Amino acid sequence: MKIARVSTKNGNTYGIAHNGKFVSKEILQKDLGRELPSSTCDFFELITANAKLKAKLISATEKADKAIPIGSARLLPPVDGRPKVICIGLNYKDHAKEQGVRPPEEPVIFMKPYTSIAGPVDAIEYPSYITKLDYEAELGVVIGRRCKAMKEEEVYENIAGYLAFNDVSARDVQFKDGQWTRGKSFDTFAPIGPWVVTTDEIPDPQNLKIMSRVNGEVRQNSNTGNMIFDVKTIVSFVSKVMTLDAGDIIATGTPPGVGVFWKPHPKLLKVGDMVEIEIEKIGSIRNKVVAGKV
Amino acid sequence: MKIARVSTKNGNTYGIAHNGKFVSKEILQKDLGRELPSSTCDFFELITANAKLKAKLISATEKADKAIPIGSARLLPPVDGRPKVICIGLNYKDHAKEQGVRPPEEPVIFMKPYTSIAGPVDAIEYPSYITKLDYEAELGVVIGRRCKAMKEEEVYENIAGYLAFNDVSARDVQFKDGQWTRGKSFDTFAPIGPWVVTTDEIPDPQNLKIMSRVNGEVRQNSNTGNMIFDVKTIVSFVSKVMTLDAGDIIATGTPPGVGVFWKPHPKLLKVGDMVEIEIEKIGSIRNKVVAGKV
Repeated sequence: MKIARVSTKNGNTYGIAHNGKFVSKEILQKDLGRELPSSTCDFFELITANAKLKAKLISATEKADKAIPIGSARLLPPVDGRPKVICIGLNYKDHAKEQGVRPPEEPVIFMKPYTSIAGPVDAIEYPSYITKLDYEAELGVVIGRRCKAMKEEEVYENIAGYLAFNDVSARDVQFKDGQWTRGKSFDTFAPIGPWVVTTDEIPDPQNLKIMSRVNGEVRQNSNTGNMIFDVKTIVSFVSKVMTLDAGDIIATGTPPGVGVFWKPHPKLLKVGDMVEIEIEKIGSIRNKVVAGKV
Repeated sequence: MKIARVSTKNGNTYGIAHNGKFVSKEILQKDLGRELPSSTCDFFELITANAKLKAKLISATEKADKAIPIGSARLLPPVDGRPKVICIGLNYKDHAKEQGVRPPEEPVIFMKPYTSIAGPVDAIEYPSYITKLDYEAELGVVIGRRCKAMKEEEVYENIAGYLAFNDVSARDVQFKDGQWTRGKSFDTFAPIGPWVVTTDEIPDPQNLKIMSRVNGEVRQNSNTGNMIFDVKTIVSFVSKVMTLDAGDIIATGTPPGVGVFWKPHPKLLKVGDMVEIEIEKIGSIRNKVVAGKV
């Protein structure tokens, strides 16, 4: 199941994307004869807790005759509300190597604010006082219900699904501050999407091709199997620090090929560039870099 | 105006604390003949935008005859919902000096998740795998409405008020990771309160005594006038990175005297300790350290 949020002429809603079509929450409610939550975060919780309902929703989506072509609606960030966004640094061996640092013994975490979230086709706003804008293709994990201090074997049952995540970074600020937070926290610096693909479609998140392209040129090309710490290790680790909620996003680190470490010369982002993050079985997000208002 | 949240036998609510008494939202609604928002974050927005209503609420509070003694209710964190919690590192000259580092040229920011927020009398849970637990007394700024890229002179009109903030820190993890996020993000590591004191009562946030005590022993004893970057500089700076929302909390750094740098030997927290943060014109929060479940 691919859970998408869209903006249509009748307002914003969410629903299920299937074979190029979109079946809205409103249609699913009629077909199932029951109310569905108003937010996707609550919807993640519902389907994570209720496998029978999830199966019914998949079946209703396949049968729905009132679906609209997905291309006729503008996709919004599939996670709404104010989720936590937790990121893992240095989680692909070759990415640690390209910047000449040792891979960490434990995951290193930092956070981005919910205000940095952008949709799968939204612009990335380049702040005027930043000089080194960069991309980072990452697999994002979306939590399915409130959970804390999970063992690794409990992780998958608490995940709603996965999405493509771009950990946009202002390298000048990131390296100057030492603390990574500011350089990664600007508005629009966390494009996500195109939808949340539920765990039934991705039973193994450690074998997915992951790529980034800038203006069509391949920059990162790896596989989630190359992570140093896998999804279940990371999510368990983070849950031993903080209580996680439905909709919280954990980004699992980026493979080598980011702009700032490109050889022989850095290849940083500039206004007008189109950045694409693509992950196998999920799809791609495409975000254009525009001049920021700040 | 002191905006407090409380737990009573009829459930959780918020209201105004005045002279040792608490006037609930429900009483204020009756006296004013109008609905008030259900969350304190929306209430901050309302009174920040509407000075006339704020004055009416203060007057109604003073006249209210149905107030209950504040001691008869348990105080909750005065900010509800899922605010951003943004912290400033190294913002008192002597605190930079005590750890042998140069004061930064610009504020250095990091974030704590909303799940780290605890109330003014809640326990601080000491995770079992942490070895160096510490306190940090800080003045917290509470944002009054959505704002972005503010000039310094626009800051005060967008602040709802102030609170006492304890930036509880696991020094072992903080220093091992390099990134400060994990060591500061455990559940209960951000006690706040005892209420939000609105800006009319604190026209100058740069002249407030700020102290911490552990089991009654004074550990930090300074004045917010000793900040390197003042409130309007910090809030303007952060707002040029991320959009701020009503209820978002910005903690403004801690003065010298934290446990880990105590001379001649560190004085770290242990289970059973009572940590108090007191700020002039605001009041104090008192949090007992207990063994964590994790």
